[in-house]
Amino acid sequence: MGTIAALAGGVGAARFLRGLVRAVPATDVVVVGNTGDDDVFHGLHVSPDLDTVTYTLAGAVGAMGWGLAGDTFRTLEAYERYGEATWFRLGDADLATHLYRTSRLREGATLTEVTAEITLAWGLKARLLPMSDDRVATVIDVAGAPNSGSGGGEPVPMAMQEWFVRERARPPVAGVRFEGAAEARPGPAVLDALREADAIILCPSNPVISIGPILALPGVRDALRARREQVVAISPIIRGATVKGPADRLMAAAGIEVSCAGVASIYADLCGTLLVDDSDADRVADVERHGVRAAVAPILMRDADDAEALARRALDLVS
Amino acid sequence: MGTIAALAGGVGAARFLRGLVRAVPATDVVVVGNTGDDDVFHGLHVSPDLDTVTYTLAGAVGAMGWGLAGDTFRTLEAYERYGEATWFRLGDADLATHLYRTSRLREGATLTEVTAEITLAWGLKARLLPMSDDRVATVIDVAGAPNSGSGGGEPVPMAMQEWFVRERARPPVAGVRFEGAAEARPGPAVLDALREADAIILCPSNPVISIGPILALPGVRDALRARREQVVAISPIIRGATVKGPADRLMAAAGIEVSCAGVASIYADLCGTLLVDDSDADRVADVERHGVRAAVAPILMRDADDAEALARRALDLVS
Repeated sequence: MGTIAALAGGVGAARFLRGLVRAVPATDVVVVGNTGDDDVFHGLHVSPDLDTVTYTLAGAVGAMGWGLAGDTFRTLEAYERYGEATWFRLGDADLATHLYRTSRLREGATLTEVTAEITLAWGLKARLLPMSDDRVATVIDVAGAPNSGSGGGEPVPMAMQEWFVRERARPPVAGVRFEGAAEARPGPAVLDALREADAIILCPSNPVISIGPILALPGVRDALRARREQVVAISPIIRGATVKGPADRLMAAAGIEVSCAGVASIYADLCGTLLVDDSDADRVADVERHGVRAAVAPILMRDADDAEALARRALDLVS
Repeated sequence: MGTIAALAGGVGAARFLRGLVRAVPATDVVVVGNTGDDDVFHGLHVSPDLDTVTYTLAGAVGAMGWGLAGDTFRTLEAYERYGEATWFRLGDADLATHLYRTSRLREGATLTEVTAEITLAWGLKARLLPMSDDRVATVIDVAGAPNSGSGGGEPVPMAMQEWFVRERARPPVAGVRFEGAAEARPGPAVLDALREADAIILCPSNPVISIGPILALPGVRDALRARREQVVAISPIIRGATVKGPADRLMAAAGIEVSCAGVASIYADLCGTLLVDDSDADRVADVERHGVRAAVAPILMRDADDAEALARRALDLVS
């Protein structure tokens, strides 16, 4: 098999990718990472999903699936003195990555270039491509401001991390937008990676806010449609619930059934095969009603062995 | 007495200022701080002398006279992964200050504004004014590159921190320049502070690279000359040696005698009185040959009590 392209969000994708780089030579893997969650904290450019993938593949990720294992929070604690909000928990060692990224971007490097430098420094053999070097911001339109007391009213836009981390994904979602996506260009190697890959995997990530921003970039959806038979998705929904994260709320807010069948409905035009959990075997017909082939496998990954088995199963479906 | 203005560098000045804010109400003290040593490390704007004054007056300074007591270096250690030089030791808690400063500057705040915010956050009652909001860079021209093997040749310019910290002040000095000083404006409140102060103190700082950059700003030297009888300097040189730092080498390189008399020769036009150490009583005549009144006192400050006594003595000389 030649190269494998994988569209990836954060924690779920990273856990899957641990297995993919064991199932095939890691140098054959090209990961296209979501940057819609990127944001600036304390003047630093933070790329949560890219870093989660990097740290996970380096075997250095924290227990929660993000940040660095064993990290401390001295800088952030000291920062509170200056009255700035510190709800986005950046560890001391993690900060070095954001400092380096920010410093290089300011020198004129592209996010693609800096990401290559960072993954090299962490010894990754897989390539990690930011979906775009342009700014795309995932915006959650919240139905009425939290604590506004007014109820209803105009939706209030929140940056993804504000809604997800600061507000703990509690405010009801009126809609999701990818600001800048229509004008953004995919990263310089992204479309070629999709065209040339022998298989394309949509990782078990949030279809709305992790894979969604990638699909919103001009040319990406068309590139995937052209390769539909080589595209396999892994459902992030098991028995109508998310394994991790707010996919359930965001799918529901978008009017999509929170199920593997709902995932199939989102991906139907660009994905030939959906891998669903064994426990969702009774939903195979509902998936296939969307014109997407369904296959079943144990999807929940307890460890890298599970992830490797899942990756092998996914690749078998499109080779 | 009304306000007291103090021109200050780093460690020596900060130790003196601890006493000054006990000798008079701290709210009456306006410190004009050197920013010629400011530099950018890892994309962060670092103001070593301003921070040393702030941390010292807040009672939080590290044992070496800079940085924060008990600080850790997790971020810097992690940064080494990215192959960047980390010889300038920035602690984790200290980094919060540089992050905040950099972030605010990028938002459009002036260094004067940010410094006021930082000193407020640390509970300082004295005002700390950066000498300028414009960039002034102290450059050490080194006689021949270190490790060049060629010897002699054209002087090689080094940023102050490169020469002092990275090269440990070892490379021989051919000259010192204050890049940008001629075009820079003093900070918005600096000249008024000098005009209105009842007494002006030149702290026991390096006259070449700590007080020198302040004096190089347009208008500062004239403002001091106009107040010469209210200006008192404290010699940073005792018995021909520096208490701390490279003042001896830099004075010698500038062709100035390394002694309290040499200090008098630098300050003669703008300073009516020089306070020298008891042990330099035999040099009083040499000081006064430059037209500067000499007074003697114990200058070495072992603690804040010493600093307070020294501050009282200095103020007595100009009131």
